[in-house]
Amino acid sequence: MPNVPMVEYDDASPDVRAVFDEIRAARGSDQISVYWKTLAFHPPTLRRNWNAVRETMAPGALDPMTKELLYIAASVATNCDFCIEAHIAHARRLGMSDEMLGELMAVVALASGANRLGVGYGVEPSRRQ
Amino acid sequence: MPNVPMVEYDDASPDVRAVFDEIRAARGSDQISVYWKTLAFHPPTLRRNWNAVRETMAPGALDPMTKELLYIAASVATNCDFCIEAHIAHARRLGMSDEMLGELMAVVALASGANRLGVGYGVEPSRRQ
Amino acid sequence: MPNVPMVEYDDASPDVRAVFDEIRAARGSDQISVYWKTLAFHPPTLRRNWNAVRETMAPGALDPMTKELLYIAASVATNCDFCIEAHIAHARRLGMSDEMLGELMAVVALASGANRLGVGYGVEPSRRQ
Amino acid sequence: MPNVPMVEYDDASPDVRAVFDEIRAARGSDQISVYWKTLAFHPPTLRRNWNAVRETMAPGALDPMTKELLYIAASVATNCDFCIEAHIAHARRLGMSDEMLGELMAVVALASGANRLGVGYGVEPSRRQ
Amino acid sequence: MPNVPMVEYDDASPDVRAVFDEIRAARGSDQISVYWKTLAFHPPTLRRNWNAVRETMAPGALDPMTKELLYIAASVATNCDFCIEAHIAHARRLGMSDEMLGELMAVVALASGANRLGVGYGVEPSRRQ
Amino acid sequence: MPNVPMVEYDDASPDVRAVFDEIRAARGSDQISVYWKTLAFHPPTLRRNWNAVRETMAPGALDPMTKELLYIAASVATNCDFCIEAHIAHARRLGMSDEMLGELMAVVALASGANRLGVGYGVEPSRRQ
Repeated sequence: MPNVPMVEYDDASPDVRAVFDEIRAARGSDQISVYWKTLAFHPPTLRRNWNAVRETMAPGALDPMTKELLYIAASVATNCDFCIEAHIAHARRLGMSDEMLGELMAVVALASGANRLGVGYGVEPSRRQ
Repeated sequence: MPNVPMVEYDDASPDVRAVFDEIRAARGSDQISVYWKTLAFHPPTLRRNWNAVRETMAPGALDPMTKELLYIAASVATNCDFCIEAHIAHARRLGMSDEMLGELMAVVALASGANRLGVGYGVEPSRRQ
Repeated sequence: MPNVPMVEYDDASPDVRAVFDEIRAARGSDQISVYWKTLAFHPPTLRRNWNAVRETMAPGALDPMTKELLYIAASVATNCDFCIEAHIAHARRLGMSDEMLGELMAVVALASGANRLGVGYGVEPSRRQ
Repeated sequence: MPNVPMVEYDDASPDVRAVFDEIRAARGSDQISVYWKTLAFHPPTLRRNWNAVRETMAPGALDPMTKELLYIAASVATNCDFCIEAHIAHARRLGMSDEMLGELMAVVALASGANRLGVGYGVEPSRRQ
Repeated sequence: MPNVPMVEYDDASPDVRAVFDEIRAARGSDQISVYWKTLAFHPPTLRRNWNAVRETMAPGALDPMTKELLYIAASVATNCDFCIEAHIAHARRLGMSDEMLGELMAVVALASGANRLGVGYGVEPSRRQ
Repeated sequence: MPNVPMVEYDDASPDVRAVFDEIRAARGSDQISVYWKTLAFHPPTLRRNWNAVRETMAPGALDPMTKELLYIAASVATNCDFCIEAHIAHARRLGMSDEMLGELMAVVALASGANRLGVGYGVEPSRRQ
């Protein structure tokens, strides 16, 4: 159980229900995930976060698959267990293969280790050298 | 100046020089970056890290551009100023446009904010629900 | 179960029991939380941490509610699931409303996302510009 | 110098200039900070981030001062040097005293240390106990 | 259950089985931990990670116990619950006492708190002063 | 320049001067580092932090060198550039060799990378399996 009560569709206020309807339409499913039901605890956050997801993850100079991979990478780096699981599932629905996931994790692990060497040894960006 | 002395090519031991030669060949440039000259402080780390970069960043199920974008995303998330600058430069050499960089940063910022909502509200992965 | 055995009040050494007594008095409850029973694994850490909590969280230029909100914010940012839950409960006892919690999470999420843009784009503090 | 070119007001596109005008009005100053001039590199991110700042930091159940303190706390916890400096300046303009800043830092340091004890000893939230 | 299926010894490909055999020999036990069975999802990562563990954790200028303690410290600082538990177990097999573990956690907590004071107050390394 | 004014010995209040005197005696030098002069901005934090350093870093079940190495490891993992530099200097004064520093960084980098694999693949501690 999360730290705050979840809001179910049938109990939702009109503004929360409006976001839930957009999520249902975008996902092509009547189910609302635990994440969104929890965010509905604070309706302005739900609205702002959903808008940001819709705008940011839309196709642009980067395709939706690449964006999902980047989202997973950031979530692994900043420790959000739920987010990792949820966005691995999203990426799989977009066609991410096992091999792609394996290479993604390998790059994140490589960068995380190498970052520590850069930070630990005090290597500075050129603007500070 | 880093926290440890850098090793210049001309002063390098044979095993360090061997790695430097591989880096020069791979980068198509005689210049060795501050990062690698600093890592040469501990030759086994230089060798291991270079091998890992070469293997992990090579084309596979993910193309080199996608891998660079993931590397940048992980470096932004874990705060390595030097790494961010260096891998933005790598990605630009592979053809990353301004728009691609802007969208990458937008996805990382989105995920970082949304991760905190997931963690703060205590949303758990399904394996723990 | 934590990674180390918890110390129950009845099995506690005198120095641990002294801290437990202070916690009971401060909390107005005989119950000792899992956190403090676990910290008792290393009595000097229990003593130091409890003293620091008592001193730092006492009313000062900032009131206890504001301090609890800051504690939650820092715990969300650094991923301590237990700490988030415990300090949300503390803040609720001090009168934190749902709306206050929602706005707190919104600010932390905003800052976390915006921080990544600052770090990713390499914006420096004025002392380094 | 940041990792991307900054956009000056006079060179800005109409949509960037519109955001800059809102920032100038809100801040009561013609100066645009390095942060916003850098974010203008990707106009949709500038717009989204500015909207989120304006909405999230507005007075609500928490007053603007408390929100600034929370913003500083999150920025200290996630290592954004620029953000810390900028939001300390914002909070000072709202009347933050030296003593308030000192207590803020003390709470963040306390939480950061105590979080590591919770995580290191494996103390779980009650939903998982 | 992890986010990816685990590979059991009997179902493993020859290259995975080769790593598993090395782990079994090094650990003196037929059991393969959940970690390694999960890493086998992407065989090159399994191989690279195992090689790195074997080389890096071997006796050198630092003894294996000190290396395990450092590994635990880094895992506590970067929030890997599984890693903390696993490496506490490794260190205990090498003879780590309760008192050593308590002091380790105390140092990590001290550094984590003090780091936030350094970062929050903007204390710079001497190369930037 | 830090985000707050530093306190020089000659301008210090008696309680700050008392801490400075203890630091001078412990370090065997009249110089007070930038870190402590900055912490003096909030005297109770200076006092609490200095006491914690003195107690925690004293010889115990772990020797002072091992404690310094752990302090460096935690500082590298949580990104405190000043702290890394300062504690590398402390450790060198205690006799840390180049090889020891190189192995320390290698272990931290290994753990940081491997932690991401554990977190990304969702490997759970045994208490949650």
